[in-house]
Amino acid sequence: MSLRILAEPIVRAALLEDLGRAGDITTDAVVAADAEIDAAIAARQPGCLAGLDVALMAFELLDPSLELTRLCDDGARVERGQKVARIRGRARPVLAAERTALNLLCRLSGVATATRQLADAIGNHKAKIVCTRKTTPGLRILEKEAVRLGGGANHRFGLDDAMLIKDNHVAMAGGVRPALQRAKAAAGHLVKIELEVDTLDQLAEALDEGIDAVLLDNMDPPTLRLAVEMVAGRAITEASGRITRETVPTIAAAGVDLISSGWITHSAPILDLGLDTD
Amino acid sequence: MSLRILAEPIVRAALLEDLGRAGDITTDAVVAADAEIDAAIAARQPGCLAGLDVALMAFELLDPSLELTRLCDDGARVERGQKVARIRGRARPVLAAERTALNLLCRLSGVATATRQLADAIGNHKAKIVCTRKTTPGLRILEKEAVRLGGGANHRFGLDDAMLIKDNHVAMAGGVRPALQRAKAAAGHLVKIELEVDTLDQLAEALDEGIDAVLLDNMDPPTLRLAVEMVAGRAITEASGRITRETVPTIAAAGVDLISSGWITHSAPILDLGLDTD
Amino acid sequence: MSLRILAEPIVRAALLEDLGRAGDITTDAVVAADAEIDAAIAARQPGCLAGLDVALMAFELLDPSLELTRLCDDGARVERGQKVARIRGRARPVLAAERTALNLLCRLSGVATATRQLADAIGNHKAKIVCTRKTTPGLRILEKEAVRLGGGANHRFGLDDAMLIKDNHVAMAGGVRPALQRAKAAAGHLVKIELEVDTLDQLAEALDEGIDAVLLDNMDPPTLRLAVEMVAGRAITEASGRITRETVPTIAAAGVDLISSGWITHSAPILDLGLDTD
Amino acid sequence: MSLRILAEPIVRAALLEDLGRAGDITTDAVVAADAEIDAAIAARQPGCLAGLDVALMAFELLDPSLELTRLCDDGARVERGQKVARIRGRARPVLAAERTALNLLCRLSGVATATRQLADAIGNHKAKIVCTRKTTPGLRILEKEAVRLGGGANHRFGLDDAMLIKDNHVAMAGGVRPALQRAKAAAGHLVKIELEVDTLDQLAEALDEGIDAVLLDNMDPPTLRLAVEMVAGRAITEASGRITRETVPTIAAAGVDLISSGWITHSAPILDLGLDTD
Amino acid sequence: MSLRILAEPIVRAALLEDLGRAGDITTDAVVAADAEIDAAIAARQPGCLAGLDVALMAFELLDPSLELTRLCDDGARVERGQKVARIRGRARPVLAAERTALNLLCRLSGVATATRQLADAIGNHKAKIVCTRKTTPGLRILEKEAVRLGGGANHRFGLDDAMLIKDNHVAMAGGVRPALQRAKAAAGHLVKIELEVDTLDQLAEALDEGIDAVLLDNMDPPTLRLAVEMVAGRAITEASGRITRETVPTIAAAGVDLISSGWITHSAPILDLGLDTD
Amino acid sequence: MSLRILAEPIVRAALLEDLGRAGDITTDAVVAADAEIDAAIAARQPGCLAGLDVALMAFELLDPSLELTRLCDDGARVERGQKVARIRGRARPVLAAERTALNLLCRLSGVATATRQLADAIGNHKAKIVCTRKTTPGLRILEKEAVRLGGGANHRFGLDDAMLIKDNHVAMAGGVRPALQRAKAAAGHLVKIELEVDTLDQLAEALDEGIDAVLLDNMDPPTLRLAVEMVAGRAITEASGRITRETVPTIAAAGVDLISSGWITHSAPILDLGLDTD
Repeated sequence: MSLRILAEPIVRAALLEDLGRAGDITTDAVVAADAEIDAAIAARQPGCLAGLDVALMAFELLDPSLELTRLCDDGARVERGQKVARIRGRARPVLAAERTALNLLCRLSGVATATRQLADAIGNHKAKIVCTRKTTPGLRILEKEAVRLGGGANHRFGLDDAMLIKDNHVAMAGGVRPALQRAKAAAGHLVKIELEVDTLDQLAEALDEGIDAVLLDNMDPPTLRLAVEMVAGRAITEASGRITRETVPTIAAAGVDLISSGWITHSAPILDLGLDTD
Repeated sequence: MSLRILAEPIVRAALLEDLGRAGDITTDAVVAADAEIDAAIAARQPGCLAGLDVALMAFELLDPSLELTRLCDDGARVERGQKVARIRGRARPVLAAERTALNLLCRLSGVATATRQLADAIGNHKAKIVCTRKTTPGLRILEKEAVRLGGGANHRFGLDDAMLIKDNHVAMAGGVRPALQRAKAAAGHLVKIELEVDTLDQLAEALDEGIDAVLLDNMDPPTLRLAVEMVAGRAITEASGRITRETVPTIAAAGVDLISSGWITHSAPILDLGLDTD
Repeated sequence: MSLRILAEPIVRAALLEDLGRAGDITTDAVVAADAEIDAAIAARQPGCLAGLDVALMAFELLDPSLELTRLCDDGARVERGQKVARIRGRARPVLAAERTALNLLCRLSGVATATRQLADAIGNHKAKIVCTRKTTPGLRILEKEAVRLGGGANHRFGLDDAMLIKDNHVAMAGGVRPALQRAKAAAGHLVKIELEVDTLDQLAEALDEGIDAVLLDNMDPPTLRLAVEMVAGRAITEASGRITRETVPTIAAAGVDLISSGWITHSAPILDLGLDTD
Repeated sequence: MSLRILAEPIVRAALLEDLGRAGDITTDAVVAADAEIDAAIAARQPGCLAGLDVALMAFELLDPSLELTRLCDDGARVERGQKVARIRGRARPVLAAERTALNLLCRLSGVATATRQLADAIGNHKAKIVCTRKTTPGLRILEKEAVRLGGGANHRFGLDDAMLIKDNHVAMAGGVRPALQRAKAAAGHLVKIELEVDTLDQLAEALDEGIDAVLLDNMDPPTLRLAVEMVAGRAITEASGRITRETVPTIAAAGVDLISSGWITHSAPILDLGLDTD
Repeated sequence: MSLRILAEPIVRAALLEDLGRAGDITTDAVVAADAEIDAAIAARQPGCLAGLDVALMAFELLDPSLELTRLCDDGARVERGQKVARIRGRARPVLAAERTALNLLCRLSGVATATRQLADAIGNHKAKIVCTRKTTPGLRILEKEAVRLGGGANHRFGLDDAMLIKDNHVAMAGGVRPALQRAKAAAGHLVKIELEVDTLDQLAEALDEGIDAVLLDNMDPPTLRLAVEMVAGRAITEASGRITRETVPTIAAAGVDLISSGWITHSAPILDLGLDTD
Repeated sequence: MSLRILAEPIVRAALLEDLGRAGDITTDAVVAADAEIDAAIAARQPGCLAGLDVALMAFELLDPSLELTRLCDDGARVERGQKVARIRGRARPVLAAERTALNLLCRLSGVATATRQLADAIGNHKAKIVCTRKTTPGLRILEKEAVRLGGGANHRFGLDDAMLIKDNHVAMAGGVRPALQRAKAAAGHLVKIELEVDTLDQLAEALDEGIDAVLLDNMDPPTLRLAVEMVAGRAITEASGRITRETVPTIAAAGVDLISSGWITHSAPILDLGLDTD
């Protein structure tokens, strides 16, 4: 995170969750208080790095005297075996913080790696991968950053920073037009409005009313292509639904601006990194 | 969670993360304040349910007057399309809590489903699947429960409720024997001690010294079988490393008591559930 | 607030700030534990009401058994002497919560009243009064709502929900054009961009580059009128600087969409309301 | 604040309120990570400074490496254009903290300036201006200090550090005498008791019973003078009600010890200060 | 506590400290989810009851559906075997909350009982037992109330609600007179000032300067008597040092107003109470 | 505490409890802002030191520039008059933190001293003194460490880190055997199980079922000896009930492994230490 004040509470809470009441009783029993360690965090598989700042913060919060050296930037592609950071100093806090640091680092690097995979699948098309609000409860700001580091862009950060009118909203408002009119009447002048459309008829109605962005949900590529033509640059186009590395090229080829994936935050496997001592 | 006092802070924080400062500005703009909704949470794919309590708590925290009906127990296997809960009442809080509730429910059901898959792969062998500390930061107590609901058992909840002497500890203590001796000298009488062994020699040393449990890390099935024979019931045996649905049967057949998997908590895909309105 | 979960922590903290360690020692000493009270909150001067929900929450948090009756809606104009709520029940919690409730109610009604005064000064022009980020630390979400209740609209809620490129940003980026280009490259697709311009040359540059909204800072009415003509509907226009009830009509007549005032949140006097007992 | 441990939570919460989830997205997009700034906080109008410590703390909390130089003491009178502090270092945290720092500084300096105006109006009379509990929720300890810096004195900090028997208490206790007797019976030996009196008869009764201080509420100057004569030094006298710069001299001339004003904390306009870059 | 809003955070934190991450794993394993219990809290020795409200709150926080019946008032003397409350309902939350409830109840009743013992030792003398700031960190407001329930009175609640000038302050100020003068100059009009004196000379100086209360520290009874005569009603007199049930009568006989004891809060043994099931 | 991250919240809360809203108003009034102090913490009676780390943290939290020197290790026996730490620097924070630091230090040293007394009474027997969950709410982790420093060992830290089946559990499960069977079925592989037995019949049943530890509650020494013989090393034996310095030798002589005392945490008098200035 660019701002430590935002990320530190998350890392602190993660440490306390693992330390419990009594702390690392194994290390306190087995490792001498003055023992020193020289360790490195290394990738066990190739991928895209994210979360190194918060991982190192876990070590620092337990012992500010540890010597922490970044060997790699967040966002970089790492190879199997590549060392991404070095940690030197008292062994006890290093071992006590290890799991918390790695839990954060591997998860966030997993998000970045998954995003990178989808982003790479786009090829030369203009589309960008965007995330959703299907993030891990408590970790949203970190996962949003991991998406950016993996080459994606961010959708809304929450319910309050933009309007996204979904099918339920349309149904309860009695149609696309009244939904949009109510939204515009209430929106502040710096609030953008996006609307989910399931059919080209809905799309026509939305464009007629005027809209910042349209979410083209679960449309097949030919329909997507028609939608993009209908929009003709009057709104940002976002495709969603059944987004995989396999479907991304075709969807991107339909000409949409954005392809949104919940998978990159809710189901991406971790990137395996570990702590090595010499 | 059996105790609401433990789970509520997690759910509350998840809601606040999504609501931000201004709350659900789309719903407040588009849906009338007195509009009512009759909705159901339904499975979009088969799996094992977990987290329904905390998901429903998200709705209740936004509006205690909502009528919430469980149609399924946590731990149950659900079919595609099966409704697991019904939510009736004011539409605004239902739509505002929807994503938070589903984020928790889908993730926890994903953990339970992954656990259930590994547990089912054990067949008639006595082994049990156990989780690790490779959990999502902030969600450990919920994920540990999801593992139990999926037919697994829980390992340590943190660094302080049992001793697990790992390879780094052994190295820093100067061997298995001194590590174990220090651990025993420091452990309270209700603290169990487990030791990670990489070789049968280390195992012999540990058994000679006396130990509650041994973590047999990354051993191939024949070695595992030899290890189980050496232990001969004197300690609990846990196998770890390269645990997949494919490897579980062979590992279980080696006779170990426990098979531990980080994957079920760090990389399990979500179970897809959604909110349907009629 | 539409959502109690957002406002309650503010009210609770305000109560605890006043109760200190020992609570209302005067009331506990002088008023019998079983004494009852029948009180009303009444306006001591005419104005626009805001904050009644949070004021009543203060009483409820101290004693959920109190009978609280709204006699007036937030946003309504109140006359001198008009009762806006009735509070019946145990006297001790009513007296203990009185000051906290009134501190919130009078301040928020003061914001709404000030906004209403500026909004009324606009007359038939299309302009709307908008607030700024010059709010009371800790009370922003409540003051933003008070602005809406007073007939105004909300600007950004914080630094993260829209981009507002100010003179310092322009200077550090090396001009309007590079500033805007960097902003667009970084902005998510649901993030609007506004730019502060001090001259018509800057405005031309911004319009040429494309922009959602322009902040016309401290321009005199003739210049404002020229600016509005230059914009010609291609962006939202916001005037700021020296906004008073006297200057608003002329500024609104220049044709701007928005007139932003820091005064309505940072310097509006309270609306005097008090607790009467019969 | 003399003690950082008391003020820091307020400043931190104010920063987080403004930064939201994603932080200062404009600055992060437009200003280079390594850009430096040399800025000064300067007064835009004359007044009395308060809150410089907490304003600078806002910058420090975002970046401890910033070079912060006080050019003026809290409590000092400042002229229009006078620089009160200099801030040098990385531009991003300076711009991100600017609004929070100024919101605190301008508001607290507004309180100090308003207090100073009333205090100056007292002239050679012995009276002192005191504040009330009509402070901004969440900012009481800072506003109380601002009052002192502006030449005023502090009344109670809350409901628990002294007894103030108001008209409602008297009514519920059945008169001045029983109210005072109950208060004395319950008060610890280091708790002072003040009583609000509306008539000279009530005052006589209170003096007869013995009292530390009397609040002479809404009495006209001749009555105030009579009250002071009746008290004859046996209690501290405090006048309240309709306190303005115009009425203060006459009220002070009546000989009271204290003149309490809610206006200095609940309705004082801010003192305008801003951040200048060179 | 008269106000639940003040006490609940303490009780909640105490429960969480005991429940840890996983809650009461014994009860969850051994006792059926639908098992019911009918239990009573009973005194195992005679004493003075305090803390029943917070003890019952521990049960209620775990399960609001429990039926809780007070059989005794806080402040009452209880006999060995006397039941003070009845708890009926689901067994699991009762057993999970038992220890937390009893830890609070036994400790606070211990404070009340110790206070009562000293208070009873005063006999017919006018002196009152007062507590000090030597309380248990985190429990001060509860212990202060327990002192009142045991027949004692409260001293300061903290460093901020009255001035107590101690020997260190006197030494650093350069004597009793300058210390008192500085204190008076800074004290708000509702702040009382007490001064610790070690000699009659210091006492004379303090009385000459004027003072609300004097702390006569570690004086023998004859000196105390002389001090009380010197004071002659011009200040409240408080004796401290070597206060035990044996010394109290003689100290009280010296005519002091207050006798302060740290022992009643820092070293009083608990009053033994337990949970009985039928 | 070995880990500052665990102890600091307790110390910070204790400081805030004492400082209240306005801080140390006596010291701020009487002692000059630039006054320096050279102070020492000294024992007023012999005992076993514990809590020096957290006591010094109280000073450091108020002023990180204070020079703090440990003259004694936690766990050491101290003589009357012995200095255990030196504090040099600005006088105001030293005086403001004094009581909080001493409240923690004296209480924790009291726990360590009481533990040491019981531990010394064991003589050459193998038994160890262990604590219970009858600790001060909020201070458990500090008191558990004080017990270790006093020569004792720790029992469970809470309800979740081991199973202790008590008489109520046995009764509700329908006997020792079903209780134990349910416990074993639910317990994770690193969770130990202890059972409270009141009779030798119950003990026989527990041993027959297999058990990690038995709590022999309120048995007289001859019965204890029989119990130890029955156990014959198959489980850890813990004696509880009526544990005093006088009874410990006889109980230890019965051959038990552990003797648990609630008194050392719930009723131990403080060890008197104070702050001396030169």
